[in-house]
Amino acid sequence: MDLAEVFEKHLQKNLIDIQTYHPYYKEALNFMLQAGGKRFRPVLLLSVVKAANPLLIPSALDAALAIEILHTYSLIHDDLPVMDDADLRRGKPTLHKKFDELTAVLVGDALNTHAFYILVKAALHNDVKIKLVQILSFNGGVHGMVHGQILDCHFEGEKLTLEELKTLHRNKTAKLIAASLEMGAVIANLGEEIEKNLYDFGLQLGLLFQIQDDIIDEIMSEAEAGKTTKNDALKNSFVNLLGLEGAIKEADALAKK
Amino acid sequence: MDLAEVFEKHLQKNLIDIQTYHPYYKEALNFMLQAGGKRFRPVLLLSVVKAANPLLIPSALDAALAIEILHTYSLIHDDLPVMDDADLRRGKPTLHKKFDELTAVLVGDALNTHAFYILVKAALHNDVKIKLVQILSFNGGVHGMVHGQILDCHFEGEKLTLEELKTLHRNKTAKLIAASLEMGAVIANLGEEIEKNLYDFGLQLGLLFQIQDDIIDEIMSEAEAGKTTKNDALKNSFVNLLGLEGAIKEADALAKK
Repeated sequence: MDLAEVFEKHLQKNLIDIQTYHPYYKEALNFMLQAGGKRFRPVLLLSVVKAANPLLIPSALDAALAIEILHTYSLIHDDLPVMDDADLRRGKPTLHKKFDELTAVLVGDALNTHAFYILVKAALHNDVKIKLVQILSFNGGVHGMVHGQILDCHFEGEKLTLEELKTLHRNKTAKLIAASLEMGAVIANLGEEIEKNLYDFGLQLGLLFQIQDDIIDEIMSEAEAGKTTKNDALKNSFVNLLGLEGAIKEADALAKK
Repeated sequence: MDLAEVFEKHLQKNLIDIQTYHPYYKEALNFMLQAGGKRFRPVLLLSVVKAANPLLIPSALDAALAIEILHTYSLIHDDLPVMDDADLRRGKPTLHKKFDELTAVLVGDALNTHAFYILVKAALHNDVKIKLVQILSFNGGVHGMVHGQILDCHFEGEKLTLEELKTLHRNKTAKLIAASLEMGAVIANLGEEIEKNLYDFGLQLGLLFQIQDDIIDEIMSEAEAGKTTKNDALKNSFVNLLGLEGAIKEADALAKK
């Protein structure tokens, strides 16, 4: 069984359970978590752990789940009418389309907080868990993902410099990917130097991932990509700034690094 | 200096600092935090710590700040057009009125995550911090505050039973108040029995707080209360269910407990 399958099984066994008289709160909490996706961040974390010591994989699964939950909340909020106003995500209706906007805001909020609940319930030493909370809350919040998202939204339609565009996507996408690798290194107790190197590598990988995403948006139809694609001149994409060929070159350069 | 002043000073000295080319991200992150308010939850936490050992107050300030940050995110999102659609909060414009809706969603998201960043940076033992993260993420998320909020929104205008109304407000308001007391007890190392008792007391206190809030909404004008008050027959308030006299009686009964 590959790591994505191991993770998927863990996620499906650990869906959120709650007693409530609300008719669909529980369903809405789990809807986007169950909708699949590449599980890219959990697999990154688990890959580092597996490379160091496969026996540690079971104890790393909750940390991987925490990242996926945080990532999922961000997708739900990114899809909101006030942001991307997307109808389709992971080949299914977005949460505010399936239910309503209010539910999408609140379920996103709940999942954001819940990521930390799952993280501290993991069967790991408290010193390890504190580091994991620190890494996830730094890279997933004020100083990372949300910073990138607000830059992306605010500067939609305005031409940024390549450096500004990289800062945007480093925060929006790359930091959480870097955090996934770093968290794997912390769980596997690989030491601060390797933690730092994996984090820096993750920042590069995250940018590469983003450029490839921009290229996919440019060349694939909505049905092929399984999500609403929006490639107009307004988007802060590497394709828009550098052109398709320029973006492919930039991706190649990063991939070589 | 009383505890509210001590806390206020700590908060003002620890506003969020971030380097960004976004024109008002940093201002928006701090706007609602600086806007004042009763600081009720931090003061509760600090009161427990002070009663046990005043020397522990400095090390408890970041935990108090974390609760206030989480509470502040919830106010920002509750005020959104899709929820209460409020114009005024703590005597100032709500965040989406001061800036825009997009900023209010994202700043709320950022503060939610940031609460945990602040919590794990506190100068406390890792074992203590893990318990604090667990308490805050349980009571402030899926299993607490957000559950209450989604019940409140979904059942607006529908008559609930008194038990359902209590479940709603126990989750929406009381659990975070109970968490504040419990976190104080954990920091002061008062032992599991006192932690549990303070938590249970907090649940009662939280309900009392909510009923009083409903009564204030009923009898005070907007200018007096310093926030947008909405008291129509749609609201899940104790005043609407029990009448003004009934709500005052219920508050008295809880206060006696």
